[in-house]
Amino acid sequence: MIVRERPSGLRLYFIFKGSMLQSIRWQLVSTVLVAAAVYLTHGMLFAIKITMTPIPFSLIGLALAIFLGFRNNASYERYWEGRKLWGELMIACRTITRQMQTFVTGSGADEARRRMAYRAIAFAHALRHHLRGSDPREEVGALLTAEEFAALEGAVNKPDFLVRRMAADLRGLVGERATNPLFAARIDETLTSFATILAGCERIKQTPIPFSYTLLIHRTAYLYCFMLPFGLVDSIGFMTPFVVGLISYTFFGLDALGDEIAEPFGTLPNDLPLAGICRGIEISIREALGEEGLPEALKPVDFCIL
Amino acid sequence: MIVRERPSGLRLYFIFKGSMLQSIRWQLVSTVLVAAAVYLTHGMLFAIKITMTPIPFSLIGLALAIFLGFRNNASYERYWEGRKLWGELMIACRTITRQMQTFVTGSGADEARRRMAYRAIAFAHALRHHLRGSDPREEVGALLTAEEFAALEGAVNKPDFLVRRMAADLRGLVGERATNPLFAARIDETLTSFATILAGCERIKQTPIPFSYTLLIHRTAYLYCFMLPFGLVDSIGFMTPFVVGLISYTFFGLDALGDEIAEPFGTLPNDLPLAGICRGIEISIREALGEEGLPEALKPVDFCIL
Amino acid sequence: MIVRERPSGLRLYFIFKGSMLQSIRWQLVSTVLVAAAVYLTHGMLFAIKITMTPIPFSLIGLALAIFLGFRNNASYERYWEGRKLWGELMIACRTITRQMQTFVTGSGADEARRRMAYRAIAFAHALRHHLRGSDPREEVGALLTAEEFAALEGAVNKPDFLVRRMAADLRGLVGERATNPLFAARIDETLTSFATILAGCERIKQTPIPFSYTLLIHRTAYLYCFMLPFGLVDSIGFMTPFVVGLISYTFFGLDALGDEIAEPFGTLPNDLPLAGICRGIEISIREALGEEGLPEALKPVDFCIL
Amino acid sequence: MIVRERPSGLRLYFIFKGSMLQSIRWQLVSTVLVAAAVYLTHGMLFAIKITMTPIPFSLIGLALAIFLGFRNNASYERYWEGRKLWGELMIACRTITRQMQTFVTGSGADEARRRMAYRAIAFAHALRHHLRGSDPREEVGALLTAEEFAALEGAVNKPDFLVRRMAADLRGLVGERATNPLFAARIDETLTSFATILAGCERIKQTPIPFSYTLLIHRTAYLYCFMLPFGLVDSIGFMTPFVVGLISYTFFGLDALGDEIAEPFGTLPNDLPLAGICRGIEISIREALGEEGLPEALKPVDFCIL
Amino acid sequence: MIVRERPSGLRLYFIFKGSMLQSIRWQLVSTVLVAAAVYLTHGMLFAIKITMTPIPFSLIGLALAIFLGFRNNASYERYWEGRKLWGELMIACRTITRQMQTFVTGSGADEARRRMAYRAIAFAHALRHHLRGSDPREEVGALLTAEEFAALEGAVNKPDFLVRRMAADLRGLVGERATNPLFAARIDETLTSFATILAGCERIKQTPIPFSYTLLIHRTAYLYCFMLPFGLVDSIGFMTPFVVGLISYTFFGLDALGDEIAEPFGTLPNDLPLAGICRGIEISIREALGEEGLPEALKPVDFCIL
Repeated sequence: MIVRERPSGLRLYFIFKGSMLQSIRWQLVSTVLVAAAVYLTHGMLFAIKITMTPIPFSLIGLALAIFLGFRNNASYERYWEGRKLWGELMIACRTITRQMQTFVTGSGADEARRRMAYRAIAFAHALRHHLRGSDPREEVGALLTAEEFAALEGAVNKPDFLVRRMAADLRGLVGERATNPLFAARIDETLTSFATILAGCERIKQTPIPFSYTLLIHRTAYLYCFMLPFGLVDSIGFMTPFVVGLISYTFFGLDALGDEIAEPFGTLPNDLPLAGICRGIEISIREALGEEGLPEALKPVDFCIL
Repeated sequence: MIVRERPSGLRLYFIFKGSMLQSIRWQLVSTVLVAAAVYLTHGMLFAIKITMTPIPFSLIGLALAIFLGFRNNASYERYWEGRKLWGELMIACRTITRQMQTFVTGSGADEARRRMAYRAIAFAHALRHHLRGSDPREEVGALLTAEEFAALEGAVNKPDFLVRRMAADLRGLVGERATNPLFAARIDETLTSFATILAGCERIKQTPIPFSYTLLIHRTAYLYCFMLPFGLVDSIGFMTPFVVGLISYTFFGLDALGDEIAEPFGTLPNDLPLAGICRGIEISIREALGEEGLPEALKPVDFCIL
Repeated sequence: MIVRERPSGLRLYFIFKGSMLQSIRWQLVSTVLVAAAVYLTHGMLFAIKITMTPIPFSLIGLALAIFLGFRNNASYERYWEGRKLWGELMIACRTITRQMQTFVTGSGADEARRRMAYRAIAFAHALRHHLRGSDPREEVGALLTAEEFAALEGAVNKPDFLVRRMAADLRGLVGERATNPLFAARIDETLTSFATILAGCERIKQTPIPFSYTLLIHRTAYLYCFMLPFGLVDSIGFMTPFVVGLISYTFFGLDALGDEIAEPFGTLPNDLPLAGICRGIEISIREALGEEGLPEALKPVDFCIL
Repeated sequence: MIVRERPSGLRLYFIFKGSMLQSIRWQLVSTVLVAAAVYLTHGMLFAIKITMTPIPFSLIGLALAIFLGFRNNASYERYWEGRKLWGELMIACRTITRQMQTFVTGSGADEARRRMAYRAIAFAHALRHHLRGSDPREEVGALLTAEEFAALEGAVNKPDFLVRRMAADLRGLVGERATNPLFAARIDETLTSFATILAGCERIKQTPIPFSYTLLIHRTAYLYCFMLPFGLVDSIGFMTPFVVGLISYTFFGLDALGDEIAEPFGTLPNDLPLAGICRGIEISIREALGEEGLPEALKPVDFCIL
Repeated sequence: MIVRERPSGLRLYFIFKGSMLQSIRWQLVSTVLVAAAVYLTHGMLFAIKITMTPIPFSLIGLALAIFLGFRNNASYERYWEGRKLWGELMIACRTITRQMQTFVTGSGADEARRRMAYRAIAFAHALRHHLRGSDPREEVGALLTAEEFAALEGAVNKPDFLVRRMAADLRGLVGERATNPLFAARIDETLTSFATILAGCERIKQTPIPFSYTLLIHRTAYLYCFMLPFGLVDSIGFMTPFVVGLISYTFFGLDALGDEIAEPFGTLPNDLPLAGICRGIEISIREALGEEGLPEALKPVDFCIL
């Protein structure tokens, strides 16, 4: 996530972080070069004048508007649903910690509370690494016992493993009568929230926007931008490369940004700050446990929190 | 579901899998041929010049934009709701397995857990075959006892039969006091989730987008594309077939893709990977049961997971 | 609901069922006649040339796009919400049948189960007739005792009466200790689902899209189509009636279809197949009760299920 | 709410009720007069020809489409959410009546049921008057005891007062063991529904669409319509006032209708029929109590139910 | 929130509060000056005629419509979701107050009720200050004991601290048997609502609309408005600065308004009236406690409630 004040005036044009320029520079350069060539040859290709007017572009524009508008909304919905799921994870972590404090009694209660809360934090870290395909060992290891950590290593789905361990703990508490069945049923509801969050994130990660959309959109946008100079050169002359560059920049930029946020769990600049949220969960839960020496919230590096 | 990296540059134009070209090739060829004929005759039909300008196409474009945009969104929502229902199935399967472990005690508990979990997996397979009209015997048979499988054979609605068997098991557990009523009520909620998923999928499968939309859209799109050459030939001459081809490709492609994902439970390339999700459920539940020798996740064949 | 394969090619133009042509034929004929008259008089009205260009139509098109797009989406949402409510009715019927089997014990349990399940089926039929203003006697009578049926006759709101009878049964079961309070609370939740479905359907039926929208849209669309020939005749000549006919067909067709699906509980071809869903519920619940000789699913008549 | 069949053909133009003409007549008259003046002076203002083409109107049209489309959707969503909340009120009233019958036993049960049900009806009336700023005394007075009514008089938030009284009753029932805690918890859930409906309606009433939108839209729409004649007069001459009138009618009408339904709890013709819904609740609940002499459903007066 | 009647007629143009003019005045002035310069030089830049027609602006308009429409909807959804969360806070506060009255008995009940209700009010104030980064001491201090207030001072997340204190109270009530486990479970659900509201508000505050959208939109809108004079000057001459000013006003105004409501918890004029809602909660809860001398609802200052 890029954390930055909205720039104003001319400074707007001197920002590269968060601009999509980096991802689309080659496409942009090639459309502008084509436009310049078309201007220099007056729209001739192999001595044949390509007769083209702006009309076809209005007509194709219709399809493009549907495509780009649809894809943009679908991408943002995926992004925002991902964010909601991580917000629910914050709720689930705080709730299970609170419920353990309200509902569990007996001699081992403090130990049980701490273990459950640590597993909730470990779930957050494990889910992040699960979604990003990275190694959860360092962060998760510090939160579990060595034995449990070893068992986790062998699990195919690490976050799911942690939910099952929480459930095993709950079962133990019911067995020892440290909580009553009614409270256990409430805690079980919270465990279902963890399962819901996990499956929701997996759904977003595993099922992209159908590939054929991507293909149709890219093809249409590319053809549109490469043909555009032929449609403009007769009316705007030497301004053609400039206008084509501007239009390409908006279309390609919108498209590349859609690509980026449609997979919101990655580590590109506009993706969700999962590490930041995990840290926030850690601070919140440790505070709820009454611990001292809480870690600091993550600070943006080069305007970015990952 | 097509699993493929987004191609870039020229490679974009040499992909056929996932391109809608296959489904729309005849329509595309015929519009291009009509456009070529119109160019060669200079828009004359039986010695009468068809007077046409691009203006009618902007006006019809309005209706087309509403139609295509609407249908595209409606199709994608059906697709995504289908995906969500299958994501909830993953949650329901994991939850019932977890609840059986947390909430059931006594001597027969392990057997009861395994039976319930296997029925959950069988539900997933049976639902997939129910939606695709295929034969569930092979996969479901391995998960049930011979006697239960025989009873299943006679059921009209196989997934519903499995939910009823899970309920019968639950009733047995309550009768034997292997679980308490409160926990049974929680498990019953999970059974309602299975019923919800089943009815949700049946709703999507049985109730298509109203047929009259399909008819209106097809008629409008076809007439638009076949009349378009008359509107363009006077201004862009020999480029007419090319531009008509491009516009037809985007409209027909968008339309065909809408058809494909509006029925997301089929076996076309862009449909949901139900077999892949079933396999994922199987892996997850078997792991939760502590089984060894888990099956592998389905791999894409020719970039496709079904 | 029209059940039909998507036609392709020329056959597309020889389908009348599901085409909106029937509902809009007079409007269509009159716009085409007006257009023909305008062509023949070269846009003169009482010897005065009506000076009109296509420009006003692009400007009005903006308002029309907002109107038609909005109304189309609102209509479809009503349609789909209606369908969802009937999908939830399937869930509620199956769930109450299942819960009666899981949660009720004792000597009268089988009779109580059967009675509750029959009332659920009767609710579906009664709701359909309630929404369609038709006579529920035949179908509902077969599912209730004579005495109960007589009481139903006197009820203002028949589906609500049935929910109250289900509640009375539940109260009896609690009184006889045939179920425990916890399970009764779960069954009561399912009864609330029935109440939710009833009130949801009543909401859709009783509150149409605000009448002023309908009026604004109709007026704008009519004026647009009747004035259009004056804007086109100077540029496209004898093609005017044809183009006006095509544009009118799409606008009036979209509008008429919106009218049809905005009241999804009627008996027009594109309305929801309530009788078909009721039959599906009957089959599913009777199967769950273990009955023999289940009725068949409704078959489309002239491509239509009502 | 306007209750009227959709008119067809010419009759469409002779309906004033439900047409927005009344609210926008002065604006309409002034734009048409301006357009006529512009036509008569050939677009000269103080001897200076205002050079204007239709192009700026297409460009401004873009902003207008976003504004009007957005506002239209936001208004309708507010309207429909308001309707949903009142539909949930019907559910809540029926549910609490049913639950009192299922869950409460003992000698005072009938009295308690009647009192609770009457309070639910009183809640509906009180909420309507709360939202419309009218006097609830007549209708609510008949449903409460004199003493309770006196207490209600002093309450700042009358519907909330009634929920608290229902809660006090529930507490009494628990104290007398007329219901068990589990059933009380279910009834408490229904009370939370009442609280949810109240707060939801208050939210819609207290938080309008941000004022700056209204301002931006009005200014843009007004300037658009008043400048339009200058853009049209050179091409369509004496038709200018007519076309400007038509375009103004659609834009101002859409805008005025948005204003009307964005505050759906008022008493303008297109607002929600709260009195009609209250009457419906009264009939339904009194029937559930087994009362005789039910009131009649409200009939439309001059095609309108308030 | 701006509280103001919709102005009509000419007065519309003499309102500055709520107009976005203040925020966009420099941008507006510079585009108008550029337009005036372009008019005076007849579109020459350094003696070179910038050849430009309106066509590029229709094409870029497509991208702008997608951008602005998307951002506008996304901003408003954030605004309305924020408002919904605060509406749910009203529900949660009323519900916990009601549940304490229904469900808690015993000698210390009154004291416990008052303490819980005060904490709910304190939660509202603390959440507001948490979101606005302001100092909660004055308002929250009056609602807590000195000792509790001191503990609050040290908390990182003050609203969360208050939820944990409510949970500690609940645990005490369960320990003293002042409530039964079933009722405690219901109260715990309400506590989860507080946690949900807190995390929901934090989500909106911490995760803005992706920065790259902001950048793309600003750049496109600025370039569009600064280049526009070159496209218009040849056709509309001295009207250029006026039209450019109008178009810039709508685009920049829409954009600035989007910025304002996308962060709905701030203290700009169109932001949510959090202080007003807090006051409303305070009045409602104090009334429910039967207190006298309720505070007054907040009155708008200069048409504004913060």
